[in-house]
Amino acid sequence: MNAVTAIDRPVDTSRLRGFVTALADLIACTRDEQALLESGRTLLARLVARDDWLPPEYARPDPDRYQQYLLHCDSRERFSIVSFVWGPGQSTPIHDHGVWGLVGVLRGSEQVERFHRLPGGGLVAQGTDILREGEVDAVSPRIGDIHRVSNGRADAPSVSIHVYGANIGAVERATFAADGTPKSFISGYANRVIPNLWDRSRNA
Amino acid sequence: MNAVTAIDRPVDTSRLRGFVTALADLIACTRDEQALLESGRTLLARLVARDDWLPPEYARPDPDRYQQYLLHCDSRERFSIVSFVWGPGQSTPIHDHGVWGLVGVLRGSEQVERFHRLPGGGLVAQGTDILREGEVDAVSPRIGDIHRVSNGRADAPSVSIHVYGANIGAVERATFAADGTPKSFISGYANRVIPNLWDRSRNA
Ligand SMILES: [Fe+3]
Ligand SMILES: [Fe+3]
Ligand SMILES: [Mg+2]
Repeated sequence: MNAVTAIDRPVDTSRLRGFVTALADLIACTRDEQALLESGRTLLARLVARDDWLPPEYARPDPDRYQQYLLHCDSRERFSIVSFVWGPGQSTPIHDHGVWGLVGVLRGSEQVERFHRLPGGGLVAQGTDILREGEVDAVSPRIGDIHRVSNGRADAPSVSIHVYGANIGAVERATFAADGTPKSFISGYANRVIPNLWDRSRNA
Repeated sequence: MNAVTAIDRPVDTSRLRGFVTALADLIACTRDEQALLESGRTLLARLVARDDWLPPEYARPDPDRYQQYLLHCDSRERFSIVSFVWGPGQSTPIHDHGVWGLVGVLRGSEQVERFHRLPGGGLVAQGTDILREGEVDAVSPRIGDIHRVSNGRADAPSVSIHVYGANIGAVERATFAADGTPKSFISGYANRVIPNLWDRSRNA
């Protein structure tokens, strides 16, 4: 989509707005993480089942590294929604999250390498999965939240939609060297502006 | 501030982020509108007491009409925060809100003409106030919420920050002719993107 098309026919983001509201309702009525992840998984699967609602500026790969674009952050930072964009050959470092998270593949595929950290600090590989378009994965400190994620496509960008139980770009967490040595990091976000999902007068 | 300066030194929006979070905390712990308006007034007065946090793209006047820029909308649409920008000579129609609202003047001044609607539909003028920089006004269906707001300056734009107890751009409400004849309207917003307030890694 070129810039002129984007101005003429902006993407209808109402599906994303509906997801935000449904997720906020869910979080308001349950404190149980397992129940939340199960219901949240259903909502996210529904969101990524169609690829017609993400404005192209939040799906733009960078030649140097994967991008993390904030799409919505809750007023009390109880949850955030981000799009991750991997160019060909790009991957995250091994990292943790510290909070629950859900990952749904919108476009392309992702390779997920899972790790377990031993009490002494060493990392044990737990296996590798391929997440395909429309599939949803979950992480949390309870069920395991250390992984490395790579673009599953060698020839094109992949895009996934992530939800976390905090303002993830502001959470102090860790990356890990192959031997398990942790290094503190705060990811931030690639974007200074986020989509206005709330103008119901534009697209009903 | 020109575009190059804006790119080099982006505005630190952390004061607005703190306001969002404080307001969400307030709304989470009180259902009483009067208590909410009183505490919200204190928070908003603190926000507009300094004019160093609003990115210039949300303070831009339009030559033809006043602008309403969304700055934040709550995940469950329980409240929204907008900047209103009036060019010289610009004013709103006479309108209602249907929900509680707080108005704080950030820059310049506003003239507020208040009206009461009779059971038969006619409008009675209730007087005119000037709101100056740093001052905060409240509206609600309970205390009166029909008014017309105009730029209080003849020679420069004025900017105010409004908070409402809903996603105000999506609320079906009314404008009124001088004789009280109502006309349904949904205001929408002037902006397709809103500021990313949540990147604490950029400005602590
Ligand atoms: Fe991750
Ligand atoms: Fe008003
Ligand atoms: Mg597809």
